[in-house]
Amino acid sequence: MQVKLGIIGYGGMGKWHGENAPRADVEIAAVCDILEERRKEAGKHVIAEKPAAMNVQELDEMEAACKKAGVFFTVHQNRRWDKDMLIVKEAYDKGMLGDIFTIESKLHSGNGYMHEWHIYQKYGGGMIYDWGVHLIDQILYMMPEAKIKSIYADIKNVLHEEVDDYFKILLKLDNGITAHIELSTYILSYQPRWLAAGSKGTLLIHSFGCDGAIYRTGKMLEKLPPQITETEAGPTRQFAPIPPGGIVEEPLPEVETDWLEFYRNVTDVLNGREESKIKIPEVRRVLAVMEAAWKSSRTGEAVFSSKYN
Amino acid sequence: MQVKLGIIGYGGMGKWHGENAPRADVEIAAVCDILEERRKEAGKHVIAEKPAAMNVQELDEMEAACKKAGVFFTVHQNRRWDKDMLIVKEAYDKGMLGDIFTIESKLHSGNGYMHEWHIYQKYGGGMIYDWGVHLIDQILYMMPEAKIKSIYADIKNVLHEEVDDYFKILLKLDNGITAHIELSTYILSYQPRWLAAGSKGTLLIHSFGCDGAIYRTGKMLEKLPPQITETEAGPTRQFAPIPPGGIVEEPLPEVETDWLEFYRNVTDVLNGREESKIKIPEVRRVLAVMEAAWKSSRTGEAVFSSKYN
Repeated sequence: MQVKLGIIGYGGMGKWHGENAPRADVEIAAVCDILEERRKEAGKHVIAEKPAAMNVQELDEMEAACKKAGVFFTVHQNRRWDKDMLIVKEAYDKGMLGDIFTIESKLHSGNGYMHEWHIYQKYGGGMIYDWGVHLIDQILYMMPEAKIKSIYADIKNVLHEEVDDYFKILLKLDNGITAHIELSTYILSYQPRWLAAGSKGTLLIHSFGCDGAIYRTGKMLEKLPPQITETEAGPTRQFAPIPPGGIVEEPLPEVETDWLEFYRNVTDVLNGREESKIKIPEVRRVLAVMEAAWKSSRTGEAVFSSKYN
Repeated sequence: MQVKLGIIGYGGMGKWHGENAPRADVEIAAVCDILEERRKEAGKHVIAEKPAAMNVQELDEMEAACKKAGVFFTVHQNRRWDKDMLIVKEAYDKGMLGDIFTIESKLHSGNGYMHEWHIYQKYGGGMIYDWGVHLIDQILYMMPEAKIKSIYADIKNVLHEEVDDYFKILLKLDNGITAHIELSTYILSYQPRWLAAGSKGTLLIHSFGCDGAIYRTGKMLEKLPPQITETEAGPTRQFAPIPPGGIVEEPLPEVETDWLEFYRNVTDVLNGREESKIKIPEVRRVLAVMEAAWKSSRTGEAVFSSKYN
């Protein structure tokens, strides 16, 4: 079956789909936008841009409507195909870092102010709806078997009155890993996109360009000099400089990825050849984590609930 | 009055005091150690190495004993004279970063395994007792007027069975700043010693060597290009690369400091010329925060209490 795509909302991401879907042999059948025309698209399969909904309840209503109409429903969580994340996932899947204790996913920018609908709460503005939904989804996709034990968040408005432009979200997982998810539109010295540290090494990816390495130590570092030494840090032993060659660098694992897989998967689902790679319960879980993060930041409490699993 | 110092416990830090106190005209009158001889030093003023006690209750007992004996009691929180911290304090005091939203104090090492008494719980081992006590003290010293709203922690044993060798502690303060205090003996790609970010800029200090800068942006970044652009990150606008020159670098503020001030201050206190720069209620507050951090990590809850203020 030749799959055809209709696009509702021909703004930034609508145009992006219009340009990219044909590269995966998906035909653009129709485009409509509030500024030109409006019409009912009932009876068509649905791909929603992220965030699919403003909250879990809205998503449930959308899912119920799609079930009732007998149409397929998925969400464009395109960042499951991001190479940087897939490199970390590969290291996790293969146990390359030993027992991992922290995975930090950070996105910093100096671009400061947001624009257009992103600055209004009622339109779903703010960075948790924009990028938080990706960064949380990536962590849950990376470790699908892990249960969330608790969610703690620090969410702030640094340059914007209505909407968040800074967040730090900690997910304590039952596999022993704490996932640290952070974004700022105004941290001007960008910190690494990914840091994953375990008992056998540390993985670092600096940017979307996937420049980085895995760092390991030799046995030599197990024995420190017995005396405290005077360093730039004052008297210390544990944090004394490491001799040259004490930390060695390995290349990051190789991964292949292609964002167009999203459309190929949708085509295959509609032709009955494959399961959807982005399932609504997964999307729902991400929205539930976002709601918990807002609650945590507002109350100051950590949030525990079996509904995040 | 010529101030004389007796040293009980002539190990690493005892020897350090023996070498350094004379440089501030303090005379070393006696040294004793469990391995050579033991004797009562009742009636002498007391400088305790940090951590002064294993918990708040022990400290209270020590303070009561000193009050009863009519002797002066202080603690060698020497890292209040660390240049890296004082640079951040200067930026905070002068409002150089606008409204600060995060101050991150991190200490990473590849030295991995700890040694000697540091690996045993009963002797006060672990990194919270060793460096946590400094890193927490520095934050509270930097912003003495700030009240702690809540404490949340993630504390782990990565390479050690009994004692902590990784911690991330978040202090939400009533001045709008969240202090993030982190240490690992086994993160092999060290992250910056300090990152402080505010509405007017970001301060970064890479290491104890105090290499770093303040970063700021111009007005040009307030207006983003209206269309989403395709980058290495995929389609994005907020996280698109900043044009060259868009972020500018300023030197860090200059500060002067000298660890020997500790002894000069003790001498001046004993001669009735000055107040102690390290007061027992401050030391007590740090221990209370440490206890709250352990509780938070154990229970998964954030800890709230007026006793931290």
